[in-house]
Amino acid sequence: MSVLNGAIAPDWEVDHWFNAEADFSLRKLRGKVVFLHAFQMLCPGCVTHGIPQAQRVQAAFSPEQLVVVGLHSVFEHHAVMNKDALESFIYEYKLSFAIGVDRPGQGEPIPRTMRSYAMRGTPTAILIDRQGRIRWQRFGRPDDLQLGAAIGQLIAEPAAQSEEEAAAGCTADGCAVPT
Amino acid sequence: MSVLNGAIAPDWEVDHWFNAEADFSLRKLRGKVVFLHAFQMLCPGCVTHGIPQAQRVQAAFSPEQLVVVGLHSVFEHHAVMNKDALESFIYEYKLSFAIGVDRPGQGEPIPRTMRSYAMRGTPTAILIDRQGRIRWQRFGRPDDLQLGAAIGQLIAEPAAQSEEEAAAGCTADGCAVPT
Amino acid sequence: MSVLNGAIAPDWEVDHWFNAEADFSLRKLRGKVVFLHAFQMLCPGCVTHGIPQAQRVQAAFSPEQLVVVGLHSVFEHHAVMNKDALESFIYEYKLSFAIGVDRPGQGEPIPRTMRSYAMRGTPTAILIDRQGRIRWQRFGRPDDLQLGAAIGQLIAEPAAQSEEEAAAGCTADGCAVPT
Amino acid sequence: MSVLNGAIAPDWEVDHWFNAEADFSLRKLRGKVVFLHAFQMLCPGCVTHGIPQAQRVQAAFSPEQLVVVGLHSVFEHHAVMNKDALESFIYEYKLSFAIGVDRPGQGEPIPRTMRSYAMRGTPTAILIDRQGRIRWQRFGRPDDLQLGAAIGQLIAEPAAQSEEEAAAGCTADGCAVPT
Repeated sequence: MSVLNGAIAPDWEVDHWFNAEADFSLRKLRGKVVFLHAFQMLCPGCVTHGIPQAQRVQAAFSPEQLVVVGLHSVFEHHAVMNKDALESFIYEYKLSFAIGVDRPGQGEPIPRTMRSYAMRGTPTAILIDRQGRIRWQRFGRPDDLQLGAAIGQLIAEPAAQSEEEAAAGCTADGCAVPT
Repeated sequence: MSVLNGAIAPDWEVDHWFNAEADFSLRKLRGKVVFLHAFQMLCPGCVTHGIPQAQRVQAAFSPEQLVVVGLHSVFEHHAVMNKDALESFIYEYKLSFAIGVDRPGQGEPIPRTMRSYAMRGTPTAILIDRQGRIRWQRFGRPDDLQLGAAIGQLIAEPAAQSEEEAAAGCTADGCAVPT
Repeated sequence: MSVLNGAIAPDWEVDHWFNAEADFSLRKLRGKVVFLHAFQMLCPGCVTHGIPQAQRVQAAFSPEQLVVVGLHSVFEHHAVMNKDALESFIYEYKLSFAIGVDRPGQGEPIPRTMRSYAMRGTPTAILIDRQGRIRWQRFGRPDDLQLGAAIGQLIAEPAAQSEEEAAAGCTADGCAVPT
Repeated sequence: MSVLNGAIAPDWEVDHWFNAEADFSLRKLRGKVVFLHAFQMLCPGCVTHGIPQAQRVQAAFSPEQLVVVGLHSVFEHHAVMNKDALESFIYEYKLSFAIGVDRPGQGEPIPRTMRSYAMRGTPTAILIDRQGRIRWQRFGRPDDLQLGAAIGQLIAEPAAQSEEEAAAGCTADGCAVPT
């Protein structure tokens, strides 16, 4: 098992949400396990493996337990992987989970959320626990069994926590810097 | 998530073990999560889906966390699915986990362990927790993500328990009849 | 076997070729079997099944026997499936066969070559024989064995033909209107 | 394309046929293309790839064009891969094509038909043309497209032949030693 005690997950910097309200945010998902899937619509590995896996995760768990969130983190071919193209892509692939457009970087091709999570590329799969901490992050093609085990461990953890504990960002294993 | 608080897993009634000592038993695995895979060597679903899944489980988790055990539960074609045929099968399929020959039933085709676990057929996948309780059982072709999540939940549970608790068969969720 | 004696394949109406010279045309391929694959870059069935099949066909046969040609036949989301987007798609998917941009229709969303071949949608796979006749056409997901058999039959047919026969568009089965 | 001008296919030496009359023979299939699939019921590659491919071939072509024949060519674990075990295997895997038990070798583990075709192991796929000649033979896992192409070429060849030609074992490409 590779679930780690991670840092507080950075807020997502998103210019536009599909399949969600404009004020959709990580903070609103506190109390639920979050499966974050960063992709690019023209990335073959994303289309062949990453997105089908995100759809399987969405089908396998109830939305009360786990929320699937997509992030369109474009770091190449910016002109053609724009918001309109993504809208057509989401329509054609019948994706129903929330998908955000990662905000372009300043003076660099890497968009901001991708940078703040130190992602190595696309597809990247990330698990965030009920207290908003990054607990698992994989670039490439994670195994369904290992991903499932990481999800199962996070779902099994106690959801409730005192206000103070939550504020302090502590678990039995240690404390993380508060947001 | 479908992990249930189950009954104490019955002892396996096995006439012969492959890839294990003759006194291999469930009791010896106390403290580890156990993935039990019941199959028949001439069952197409077992060969195509069940056994490859058992091999993936074996590869995905460390033996300190989870032990994979096979059970050859023959309920048809008894004459040809005998111990010698199974030995050749194990050799050809390069199976390295412990595999037991389920003891024939008395006056019925269903073997004894299969009967005591109330299995509906083969393949059947079963998860037994660190305290020796059945927590998950599926006939057919379980999804890797859901199986992984059930494993992850059991691995995340505290392994240690007081002698008395262990004897009493209690968890935070209740108490079960001791073995 | 479903190889039919077909009509002369219409010339392709293409505005731009990738991986080929600007004057690439069906006429230049006379004497070779042609596998024509019409797709849209945002069509899930094309990306998941059609394009990988075209790549397998390209790998399985020598270019002396069979030439693979792609046709980007956009009939929806025209604004985002433009030439620049297709160029990025071809680059990311590492496609090395010739791919033409089907010329937009006049007063209708269906592009011209798609219309002249009476395609029902994308993906569509078409086989054209050495004399330039359509012999096999499938919308959707054709079986590799059946596609292979249709290719094998066309490759097995005699390549050579007298000048007059070629001009007349005749085979042993009959004559077609010359191009 | 890898279709070769081959030798006359040796008669099959079979002790028992399943799904066929006792006098089933290659000679009776003259005029049809034959797909011969040699396997062992405990050979993982046969069960995972070879037999499903034989079933796909059976489904893809009409019995007037092509006949699928299985051959149980046991060269190891003879005691457990016996006729009764094979019968259960055929029943469980729902195989409906003719399957013969290859006759045991004299003083060697390799059975006779396997030896006479110089097979390298199991699975082996063989195509025999309408005149009874071996035209294609592969050990291992042949590609569906290439297998399909080889089948298509043989189906496209003229079925009829003069008595004398047939007797002489000649084609336009040469002559083979008669049986």
